[in-house]
Amino acid sequence: MSLLERTIEKIYPQDSSSRDAAKTRLDNLAIPHWALGDLMDLAIDLAGMMKTVRPQVERKAIVTMAGDHGVVVENISKYPSEVTPQMVYNFVAGGAGINALAAQAGAEIFVVDMGVAADLKELADNNRIINKKVGLGTDNIAVGPAMSKAMARRAVESGIDIANELSERFDVFGTGDMGIGNTTPSTAIAAVCTGKNVADLTGRGTGLDDQQVQHKVSVIERALAVNKPDNRDGLDILAKVGGFEIGGLAGLILGAAANNKPVVIDGFISTAAALIAFKIEPFVRDYLVFSHRSVEPGHKAMQETLGCKKPLLDLNFRLGEGTGAAVAMNLVEGAVAILTKVATFEEASVAQADK
Amino acid sequence: MSLLERTIEKIYPQDSSSRDAAKTRLDNLAIPHWALGDLMDLAIDLAGMMKTVRPQVERKAIVTMAGDHGVVVENISKYPSEVTPQMVYNFVAGGAGINALAAQAGAEIFVVDMGVAADLKELADNNRIINKKVGLGTDNIAVGPAMSKAMARRAVESGIDIANELSERFDVFGTGDMGIGNTTPSTAIAAVCTGKNVADLTGRGTGLDDQQVQHKVSVIERALAVNKPDNRDGLDILAKVGGFEIGGLAGLILGAAANNKPVVIDGFISTAAALIAFKIEPFVRDYLVFSHRSVEPGHKAMQETLGCKKPLLDLNFRLGEGTGAAVAMNLVEGAVAILTKVATFEEASVAQADK
Repeated sequence: MSLLERTIEKIYPQDSSSRDAAKTRLDNLAIPHWALGDLMDLAIDLAGMMKTVRPQVERKAIVTMAGDHGVVVENISKYPSEVTPQMVYNFVAGGAGINALAAQAGAEIFVVDMGVAADLKELADNNRIINKKVGLGTDNIAVGPAMSKAMARRAVESGIDIANELSERFDVFGTGDMGIGNTTPSTAIAAVCTGKNVADLTGRGTGLDDQQVQHKVSVIERALAVNKPDNRDGLDILAKVGGFEIGGLAGLILGAAANNKPVVIDGFISTAAALIAFKIEPFVRDYLVFSHRSVEPGHKAMQETLGCKKPLLDLNFRLGEGTGAAVAMNLVEGAVAILTKVATFEEASVAQADK
Repeated sequence: MSLLERTIEKIYPQDSSSRDAAKTRLDNLAIPHWALGDLMDLAIDLAGMMKTVRPQVERKAIVTMAGDHGVVVENISKYPSEVTPQMVYNFVAGGAGINALAAQAGAEIFVVDMGVAADLKELADNNRIINKKVGLGTDNIAVGPAMSKAMARRAVESGIDIANELSERFDVFGTGDMGIGNTTPSTAIAAVCTGKNVADLTGRGTGLDDQQVQHKVSVIERALAVNKPDNRDGLDILAKVGGFEIGGLAGLILGAAANNKPVVIDGFISTAAALIAFKIEPFVRDYLVFSHRSVEPGHKAMQETLGCKKPLLDLNFRLGEGTGAAVAMNLVEGAVAILTKVATFEEASVAQADK
């Protein structure tokens, strides 16, 4: 049995007895009932994921995966592919958005080369990045598949490997992405998995104007028409219209779930990865924490497909890198603090409400 | 000239040159333009408040003020007044919601007795709380003023004192409240300051049912009819339909603004205090950071009156204590991290977008 199949076998729904025990404690906290709202709901989820009423979430890892996209030749991004490796260097140097926000949240960042179209061997040899390079960028999805089925599996299993290794040292994962052009494959994945029209899901990415968005829609429609991804098969969708970093993140999410660890999902690209993971194993949904709602119009439909009615934050972010996940890590810690540190009416000797 | 007048004289609008310098830097960060959305807007505000493009916000103080309310005899709360001092003891013991969330955010909590209807001398003598007691709870606003004009001034000046003292050691303030019954005076203040109907502003507080909410509306309407607060005079509104902790928080807000410190406004009661401060000196508005939108229906109208279109968080909180402010402290730090730690395109040697 392969790593992917062994991982899928280990993914169970949340533990209902831990959820029930958490709810009982939260019901009795010395506050008006459920007065800390969404963070109390999150606390129940975290208890269910981690199978304990006293979850630990101090050790936080943001895994930011990078890859390039052949579809950039279709002019769907304002930035050239060279920016992908430049940003990897920026992550390593500590100057990116994710560095600033992960530091604020006390999270460690792991940068992974899943398929950047540049030689990053020096960074890998010096352990500044994790090398899981599947290829030098994907092929152009507007004319054929992004990658072979074998490469799709390898990308996903690379993400699982990372989750398994980091699970020994970390309590909670956050996802992050870097890849010029990657809203295009992500929107294609969104269209396959939500069943909605491409035009309703497509956004400005890093800053396209109306005419450029229209062109991007037509490129994505061509990618779907040419490749005909099977919406019941996550690996098929990934191979045909995905990306290496999207596959790696899907694997990270599956691996986190198999290790009973919460995985905080960043923005649009990470949510596309979550959809791939969900198509591979629907129970992964029980381990997702949705950090924020991106400016990209398709994000809402994708989150709803994954069962998320309202993410934790709505700050008009559209950067990726893991920045939304980093900010939300504070809320994950807050939810656990409510569950584990707030006294009950009895413990605090506080009078309860009139019945 | 009294402390209040001297404080008002020191409150200026945000510094426009620091705002401009912050915007110039943020415009040039090595990310798609404004891709960290609301936190970039916040970073400009923080620069303007603190008059520097490199604001410091590490040292965070949450000031949680407690007071009792004579109007509880009208049965407008599900909890008895005894809970106010019980919760003060819970704050001091570290078992409340604010303790858990302030610890997560790395903020220090200062608990202030502004007018609890109980003897808290032992806590004050042991420096566990700050004693600024103006009275043993307010009078019943349904039959007359909450307090005298002199007491209203004393409450506000007590808050200014605290802001002045803590400004030597802290960079940013958060507001918090505890006071059984205090959504009733806060809703009365909201009605005076927003011009909206009491029925449209009144909520369930700590958990009233429909009939109890209806009764609460009638009590607030009586309070307004009996007292006729002058909507151009913050001290008059406070004296007639306010509360001691609300006055103290209004003073804290004025004092923070006079010291060029941001003040993170918690929920419904703290926003009522901000309205009082705003009626006393409209420029305080430039120093407010709105943490979240409370479940209380009047909160939105109050925030809009203060110029806030969208607060940072929307987590269905309705606890007070400073819990929303504590969670938002992380976002204040994140905003400053974006401004001060993310590299520009030039610094990071990253290619810019096509024009």
